[in-house]
Amino acid sequence: MIVEIINKKRLGKILSKKELENFFNGYLRGEVADYQMSALLMAICIKGMTDKEIFDLTDIFIKSGETFDFPGIEVDKHSTGGVGDKTTLIIAPIVSSLGVPVVKMSGRGLGFTGGTIDKLESIPGFRTDLTDLEIAKQKKEIGIVITSQTKNLVPLDKLIYSLRDVTGTTESIPLIATSIMSKKIASGADKILIDIKVGDGALIKKEKDAKKLAQLMKKIGKFHHKEVRCMTTNMDTPLGTSIGNSLEVIEAMEILNNKEDNYLRRLCIELASEMVSMGKDISVEEAKIQVEESIRSGKAYQKFLEFVKYQGGDLQKLKVSDQRIEVKSKKAGTIKKISAKDIGNLSVSLGAGRIEKEDKIDPTVGIVLNKRVGDQVLEKETLCTLYINKEINIEQIEEIFVIE
Amino acid sequence: MIVEIINKKRLGKILSKKELENFFNGYLRGEVADYQMSALLMAICIKGMTDKEIFDLTDIFIKSGETFDFPGIEVDKHSTGGVGDKTTLIIAPIVSSLGVPVVKMSGRGLGFTGGTIDKLESIPGFRTDLTDLEIAKQKKEIGIVITSQTKNLVPLDKLIYSLRDVTGTTESIPLIATSIMSKKIASGADKILIDIKVGDGALIKKEKDAKKLAQLMKKIGKFHHKEVRCMTTNMDTPLGTSIGNSLEVIEAMEILNNKEDNYLRRLCIELASEMVSMGKDISVEEAKIQVEESIRSGKAYQKFLEFVKYQGGDLQKLKVSDQRIEVKSKKAGTIKKISAKDIGNLSVSLGAGRIEKEDKIDPTVGIVLNKRVGDQVLEKETLCTLYINKEINIEQIEEIFVIE
Repeated sequence: MIVEIINKKRLGKILSKKELENFFNGYLRGEVADYQMSALLMAICIKGMTDKEIFDLTDIFIKSGETFDFPGIEVDKHSTGGVGDKTTLIIAPIVSSLGVPVVKMSGRGLGFTGGTIDKLESIPGFRTDLTDLEIAKQKKEIGIVITSQTKNLVPLDKLIYSLRDVTGTTESIPLIATSIMSKKIASGADKILIDIKVGDGALIKKEKDAKKLAQLMKKIGKFHHKEVRCMTTNMDTPLGTSIGNSLEVIEAMEILNNKEDNYLRRLCIELASEMVSMGKDISVEEAKIQVEESIRSGKAYQKFLEFVKYQGGDLQKLKVSDQRIEVKSKKAGTIKKISAKDIGNLSVSLGAGRIEKEDKIDPTVGIVLNKRVGDQVLEKETLCTLYINKEINIEQIEEIFVIE
Repeated sequence: MIVEIINKKRLGKILSKKELENFFNGYLRGEVADYQMSALLMAICIKGMTDKEIFDLTDIFIKSGETFDFPGIEVDKHSTGGVGDKTTLIIAPIVSSLGVPVVKMSGRGLGFTGGTIDKLESIPGFRTDLTDLEIAKQKKEIGIVITSQTKNLVPLDKLIYSLRDVTGTTESIPLIATSIMSKKIASGADKILIDIKVGDGALIKKEKDAKKLAQLMKKIGKFHHKEVRCMTTNMDTPLGTSIGNSLEVIEAMEILNNKEDNYLRRLCIELASEMVSMGKDISVEEAKIQVEESIRSGKAYQKFLEFVKYQGGDLQKLKVSDQRIEVKSKKAGTIKKISAKDIGNLSVSLGAGRIEKEDKIDPTVGIVLNKRVGDQVLEKETLCTLYINKEINIEQIEEIFVIE
């Protein structure tokens, strides 16, 4: 019985696969109410789950929907979400240029974190609604595809994720691991690199929790015969200098085109090296040499151009707003902090992101950071440039930059 | 914000009165969803509450509805619910016969536990819908009133109680204490005796938890300047020999009329002695002498007859079903156990209780136990007698009696 299952977990007891199935599949069928699911999720948050329970729940999640199975070695990368995270746009062409095929199903952004699909759709003509046949053909011909999900992958995760969001049950390592791994396994990849964002602007706030999550995801992967590697990357501060859809495509192109050498570039080299190492079964050091060569030689950039063109995008028509405001510093000093979360929320308020799922976004607006954490700034020097299409109040924006 | 309040309690932090008010009053206004309330209740079940939080929550509960305030010293008794619990029918006339007025607002039964109002309504003509004016008049004239609630007392408790029932969040000492004490304080009594049922057929399963609950309720009482005493009584096995509405009225009359000397009689004497002790400010020993004398002399029984007549009841017309089945033992031995919960569920299936709030009950059906725990039984001897009005399968009934 449903209430007995909740009571068991409340008391910290272990649930059998049968009990988990009855509860979660019952929820999917509408037989278990939202208020019962949220009570169980809270009990799980506080009392935890054993590895066996987590494996069982991941399996129930995967079987709740359709699954993909593309032939050939697949290396997939997942990021737990961040502000200004355009790493996929940079890494996918690098990895593909080195002969490791990349087929990536991405999502749209919600709240203060952006989505890869939104970024690509800022390129006029770019198609993100490829069919399974188109995906297979493109993979074979150019070895790189980034598109929306074509199938109903893990519908249980979608339902539960939105319930967790409004019931204070997001911060559970077992539930985060189950959510991520079920989607990655359902999308058919054999080798998975997870980029765990840690910090103020991420779901995971502490390094310690990131380590636990990494271990757990590796175990789930092993149980499903998948190779899983995890990297922990900082998300206290936005990634790169641009936040906003067209602006982030431009920044990605600058990295690929050798125009920048910064933290974002180094991070992308690391992530790409791990993926190439997995895809080619070579050491990370060896892979890194190939990755750096691919960027230096322009091969990665050419692969990006080929990929965008193949999916119908016209980079000549990529637009950013003409209306700009420079936010100036009121005092001189050193920049101590730029909150990723605040910048993310600012970009949403400019129209670059969504509050509700149905919201339309404006691809041409966003923020370019003229100063980074650690930089010196003079009085009246520009802190950031806003690309806007509507009136905004810049009073509170200065406060995002903590200057000492 | 609502989600932040849930997160705080999930992490075991203390909620301020303002936060509790926002959450619980928001729920009453329909602004907080059931799934958010159940998540918070689960966090409270596992992480607990401080005394301050419990006092605050009790206060919020009380203020959610109307309150009573009858003049004069009031002694109230509350039982945490059980199977075959007709103590109110016995104690109220005893206490009243000794000059301590009893005004009791009782409820109807739900699930396997019965309700005093249902039992009284089995007496044809008995009115349980007295107005405030009628209550005051009757209290003055005969010093005893048992009726349904006339006011909307603690509506928040009603809402939350039914949510707890379906979300595995009933077994929380702070929530049980808040629920009981808010209702008792709102009904205006100055002195409150709580009969905490412990065992298989009760909400509280362990003696240890009963002690904690008693301490907590005394503290809440003290905070509201109320004298609270608690007694812990066993509910592994049904109370008395009859379960079912008319049958329980008859059993209560037999105790009041000196026809039985058993555990139920002794328990009622103890409870009544505590109430008289509180009401008259005398020692329990002194009160006990008066209580025993009231029963022996027939004063208590006469008070019961006066009370029933005053509220319109005609005991001549009290009926039990003519259709009876005797359940025989298949083997000889000693009776080790008669589960209160199973007997309670059996009485519901016969029609004596409700599964849903709207269900009609049949006052004439029920169970009379011919054997009690500890009794010897021969093969084919009668274990219990069923008073029925519909076909039933007696196969599983024998199994309720554990014979060794």
